[in-house]
Amino acid sequence: MTASSEQSQTEPLAITMDDIYAAAERIEGQAHRTPVHTSRDFNAAAGQDVWFKCESFQRGGAFKFRGAYNKIASLPAEQRARGVIAFSSGNHAQAVALCGRIFGVPAVICMPTDAPIVKVEATRGYGAEIVFYDRMTEDREALAQRLSTERGLTLVPPYNDPAIIAGQGTAALELLTDVPDLDVIAAPVGGGGLISGTSVAAHALRPGIAVVGVETEAGNHAYLAKLTGERVTIPPPDTIADGIRTAALGTLTWPIVHETVDEVVLVSEDEVREAMRFLALRLKLVVEPTGAVPAAAALSGKLRRYGPRAGVILSGGNVAPETLAAVLTGA
Amino acid sequence: MTASSEQSQTEPLAITMDDIYAAAERIEGQAHRTPVHTSRDFNAAAGQDVWFKCESFQRGGAFKFRGAYNKIASLPAEQRARGVIAFSSGNHAQAVALCGRIFGVPAVICMPTDAPIVKVEATRGYGAEIVFYDRMTEDREALAQRLSTERGLTLVPPYNDPAIIAGQGTAALELLTDVPDLDVIAAPVGGGGLISGTSVAAHALRPGIAVVGVETEAGNHAYLAKLTGERVTIPPPDTIADGIRTAALGTLTWPIVHETVDEVVLVSEDEVREAMRFLALRLKLVVEPTGAVPAAAALSGKLRRYGPRAGVILSGGNVAPETLAAVLTGA
Repeated sequence: MTASSEQSQTEPLAITMDDIYAAAERIEGQAHRTPVHTSRDFNAAAGQDVWFKCESFQRGGAFKFRGAYNKIASLPAEQRARGVIAFSSGNHAQAVALCGRIFGVPAVICMPTDAPIVKVEATRGYGAEIVFYDRMTEDREALAQRLSTERGLTLVPPYNDPAIIAGQGTAALELLTDVPDLDVIAAPVGGGGLISGTSVAAHALRPGIAVVGVETEAGNHAYLAKLTGERVTIPPPDTIADGIRTAALGTLTWPIVHETVDEVVLVSEDEVREAMRFLALRLKLVVEPTGAVPAAAALSGKLRRYGPRAGVILSGGNVAPETLAAVLTGA
Repeated sequence: MTASSEQSQTEPLAITMDDIYAAAERIEGQAHRTPVHTSRDFNAAAGQDVWFKCESFQRGGAFKFRGAYNKIASLPAEQRARGVIAFSSGNHAQAVALCGRIFGVPAVICMPTDAPIVKVEATRGYGAEIVFYDRMTEDREALAQRLSTERGLTLVPPYNDPAIIAGQGTAALELLTDVPDLDVIAAPVGGGGLISGTSVAAHALRPGIAVVGVETEAGNHAYLAKLTGERVTIPPPDTIADGIRTAALGTLTWPIVHETVDEVVLVSEDEVREAMRFLALRLKLVVEPTGAVPAAAALSGKLRRYGPRAGVILSGGNVAPETLAAVLTGA
């Protein structure tokens, strides 16, 4: 992977629908075909009928398993056997660790020394080796390069990779197979892997559907990028949605977002909290803040203009107990 | 309904499997056919493979809808049209209120003046009329009799009624249809409607299966009844499991529990909290304390002696946000 040159808009996009179909075949029997939930209460509150694709029930607790498994399954067997490496203290780390265990290959996860202990333990629980680095003093790229060279590990990027994007697109493929006649489909936007896969799948399966990316107001890089027509980098955002605390889209995801995503909308921190609370207390679904981001867009009426039937990808359910507790009590 | 004479053990039980099949036909298309969830993490922790029947996703948020709908659907149309009445500040109230709305008939719910405001609002939200009574000074039975006579309302009892018991049995019917080869099935025990329906269904569908009722240590009336061979009444128990704060089994449910339930086991308050936390954080399921009671039995190994495959009925998901928050943070 190189991130040094931007793709021009005349180059082909990083993936096609065929890549998503191939990913769906690879992950079948390994990834859960997650259920779709609905709620009369939510529909009444949103003024729109909403179908929730519950990636909170995916293996590892988030959609990230789809991309990581597809990427690692796509590697030549000999290369895969030497092991994989990822940088993450979040859902991507757990997904890569879990895939390492499933394939029986070494998985090394590099985390900052200040990563939450619960994330460290969860990742270690899947059998991965954790390598800590100091965010302030160590060069992450150099560390990755060194470990990769020394041990022959293959880097599994969190979003800027065709196999990752194609894997993430299988969630929308499943949703539109179960509920074909949606007017709009919404997903959170971090590095852009999920929204890119979603957009390619949705437009291929249902021409005319609207694809909406959702960010929090603090983490609005994709919103600004759509506004200006250029990839925008922001300082690491301060938002409850820890899964999308990214600074920019990737070089492969930006062209897909630029050319195929209909709109990026913003939700406030309070709207995210309200959606989490609604999902927990009314739909009985534990969803992490990032998972609630597109639900917040629906609940606050921001998807209504696209028509009466919305699909929402609840991207994950890995929330710290104290965060969920604070959201529940309004603390 | 009269509770004045105990059934002798030679009389037939209140329901048969045919009643449950008839209930299943009545509720079809109205009740949700709730999903069954599993978790490798839970199985590893429990030392047993567990299938969870998620009644938290039932309409009204609990299994109670099954019995209430079956009862009200069984009434002669003219009688039903005059309306229904129930005493409850819990899930039964919401179920009867919801059924009233579905059938388009008046529903009156009698609640104590000190009922939690959130329960009052939820029940009113389904369009029911709430009549308050003072637990200390008013005679509940007399109030019911008066309202029933004055307005021609039919009482929908929470558990001591054949149509209620048969309706609750449809949850086990569905679970054993989805997962036929269970060794044991567990459900919480309050007044005994759910465990009785579960027991009749399970023994009819799978001879040799063990049926286990679960209570908290504080609310152990069925445990004591099984121990002594006689229906036991205890003072209203102080337990986090608010759905089973009952003093005794009913006159119709006790003979079924006595003759067909294999064992009643007890779990501690801490075991219930731990199960709730596990279900929320690992399975991403919001379950109310009573719903977590049989899960707590599985998690603490109390179902293991019956074999490697256990079914657990997660009876509901209606939990106050402050209760769930306190459980999550260990407060």
